[in-house]
Amino acid sequence: MKHEATKHDTSMRKPRLFTPGPTPVPEHVMLQMAQPIIHHRHPEFIAIMERINQNLQTLFCTVQPVLSLTSSGTGAAEAAMTSLFSPGDKGINVNNGKFAERWGEMMKTFGMESVEIAVEWGKAVSEDQLASTLKQHPDAKCVWLVHSETSTGTYTDIKRMAQVIRANSNALVCIDGITSVGAHECRMDEWGLDVLITGSQKGLMIPPGLAFVALSQRAWDKAATAKLPKFYFDLKKAKAAWEEHSTPWTPAVTLFVGLAPALQMIIDEGVENVWKRHETLSKGLRAGVQALNLSLFSESPSHAVTAINQPAMGKQFLTMLKKDYGITVTSGQDSIKDVIFRVSHLGYYDEGDMLTVLGAIEHALKRVEHSFKPGSGVAAAQRIFIENSGQS
Amino acid sequence: MKHEATKHDTSMRKPRLFTPGPTPVPEHVMLQMAQPIIHHRHPEFIAIMERINQNLQTLFCTVQPVLSLTSSGTGAAEAAMTSLFSPGDKGINVNNGKFAERWGEMMKTFGMESVEIAVEWGKAVSEDQLASTLKQHPDAKCVWLVHSETSTGTYTDIKRMAQVIRANSNALVCIDGITSVGAHECRMDEWGLDVLITGSQKGLMIPPGLAFVALSQRAWDKAATAKLPKFYFDLKKAKAAWEEHSTPWTPAVTLFVGLAPALQMIIDEGVENVWKRHETLSKGLRAGVQALNLSLFSESPSHAVTAINQPAMGKQFLTMLKKDYGITVTSGQDSIKDVIFRVSHLGYYDEGDMLTVLGAIEHALKRVEHSFKPGSGVAAAQRIFIENSGQS
Repeated sequence: MKHEATKHDTSMRKPRLFTPGPTPVPEHVMLQMAQPIIHHRHPEFIAIMERINQNLQTLFCTVQPVLSLTSSGTGAAEAAMTSLFSPGDKGINVNNGKFAERWGEMMKTFGMESVEIAVEWGKAVSEDQLASTLKQHPDAKCVWLVHSETSTGTYTDIKRMAQVIRANSNALVCIDGITSVGAHECRMDEWGLDVLITGSQKGLMIPPGLAFVALSQRAWDKAATAKLPKFYFDLKKAKAAWEEHSTPWTPAVTLFVGLAPALQMIIDEGVENVWKRHETLSKGLRAGVQALNLSLFSESPSHAVTAINQPAMGKQFLTMLKKDYGITVTSGQDSIKDVIFRVSHLGYYDEGDMLTVLGAIEHALKRVEHSFKPGSGVAAAQRIFIENSGQS
Repeated sequence: MKHEATKHDTSMRKPRLFTPGPTPVPEHVMLQMAQPIIHHRHPEFIAIMERINQNLQTLFCTVQPVLSLTSSGTGAAEAAMTSLFSPGDKGINVNNGKFAERWGEMMKTFGMESVEIAVEWGKAVSEDQLASTLKQHPDAKCVWLVHSETSTGTYTDIKRMAQVIRANSNALVCIDGITSVGAHECRMDEWGLDVLITGSQKGLMIPPGLAFVALSQRAWDKAATAKLPKFYFDLKKAKAAWEEHSTPWTPAVTLFVGLAPALQMIIDEGVENVWKRHETLSKGLRAGVQALNLSLFSESPSHAVTAINQPAMGKQFLTMLKKDYGITVTSGQDSIKDVIFRVSHLGYYDEGDMLTVLGAIEHALKRVEHSFKPGSGVAAAQRIFIENSGQS
């Protein structure tokens, strides 16, 4: 008979979250948020907000205010849309996934005219598709694009697409950066993005509950005449409060208290180094799963989350990962629910995490009788990591 | 020369928050929220939501779903308003404070017609005022009332006002219970309230970031034809998700993880006992400050927060409370900013907290040369506590 301690040790698998939001929160950030709560109109909190506001501008690569909202990322999109447009305004929506689809629905909900560019899930829009749609709709007031589509793990080259939009139209370039900010290179001012939004539970490494939005000067000019109704999400009110390092409504205080040190980690690592780390981790993971004879779902893979086609016996495979190896990944959504699974490398992850998830995937693949060479997944990832070492 | 330890001891004043939101969060709730984050679509979180949903119904005294939103209380008001009404709908707003005023502004923002009953700050609306306005506006679709007005510490008898509204009109009874739910007796179904909202950082004893809203069946029937645009705050979507113990958008996971044990404390104490405790604490505090020759601002004091007219040298007095005695209270807002200060007894407070804040107030009053008998404040409060002991 085993000792209790031994029994415990042999079954120990640390629980690890590999979902594309919530993403893991650093332990010291969690403990910081567990400090006694402070009041949001008092100097201690205002000092925290001042530091956050400055660091968010560095992260967004903008001189514009990055406004913080207590909501999910969907709230930030609503804030931008209702603060910028009027009923009847025409908008182009590039729909290549579940989140991309949402912004088109939102436009219709608010009485805008939504022109959809339907792109197969797992693909990015092409320059030609976008340019020809812009030419057909010269009166479009905005184009909504998802930088990293979380539902399919698909990256869109928004730097290039912003150039295409600017060359063909006066439409505002509205970017869902919810899983790209802090993962992919994203330079708001230099690339001419007019709207950039993100969420807290993604690259920013804190729990869900906050969302962030910045507008270009061109967008602020347009906000002056926007007629869609808004109250909670009125960005003009948010901007006025931002000047005082405050918020129009009671903010989610503890999440900001956690955001301050989490954001500081990004600044201390260096924003460009953070992008590079995400690139290396995602390349390593992709090399690993491909070496295991698994295939990628997306033709244009994101650095934030990797979508992998499920092996045979996918359901059992995912259950094993969670129950026997402590690994929480997530399946697909809607029509691709049972087609893919998604592994996140967005936020607080390092190379060891990628080796760990690949190690568990190898174990589970073995048990569903998937054909592969044991050790080939972790080895392929590790080769990428060695190749890229010292580059950042 | 003193030892370092002694030096530290003599200056030690525990920091204590007496603001009407955020209110103090129990230590075990903060530590619960510091546990590794979980995913909101996985069984562990759904089980937490199921328990929360059930306990919120007990707290609201309703059989209707109590829907949880990631926002401040203002977001919950917007959700109710946009989910229930249409452009041009007329609403009556009883304006007796800063928060009451907000709901009138919100109606106008969304293109409704707002009829205001202006009530002096610190007073509650009278039955006659309300009844005569209802008779003048038989087409009013709603009446907005604040149960406990936080800006002035004023209680309105919404049980009686709901009867007045029902007797004179078909208007929906919309109640801002942001600082009353969990403090004042509030029986949604029995009293015929159609909308009841609250926030997380109040009686619910957790940090800000969540808001809650319940609608009567009569209100849900009206929601079917409401035409105001909404997306993030669409309560029909929230209700559909509620049936699955879920939310339409990514929720503030850690706040729900904290809400579960905090709400359980309320259920375990007993909702009626919680109301009674707030009544006793507020009566004790009021007796205490009056014994110190300070006067109350409100004619109809709330059990959630007490508004007290500032003594002479009010600014120095408040600074001393914070710097020298560790007590964070809050001043007034807008026109009464320098007229009052407010002491909260909303949420996680007991008799010892009231004695503590009164003790500190006595110290600071002495230093601003206010005339009172030392010890009379704490003694007056304590007499109330003894009188009420064993009643709950």
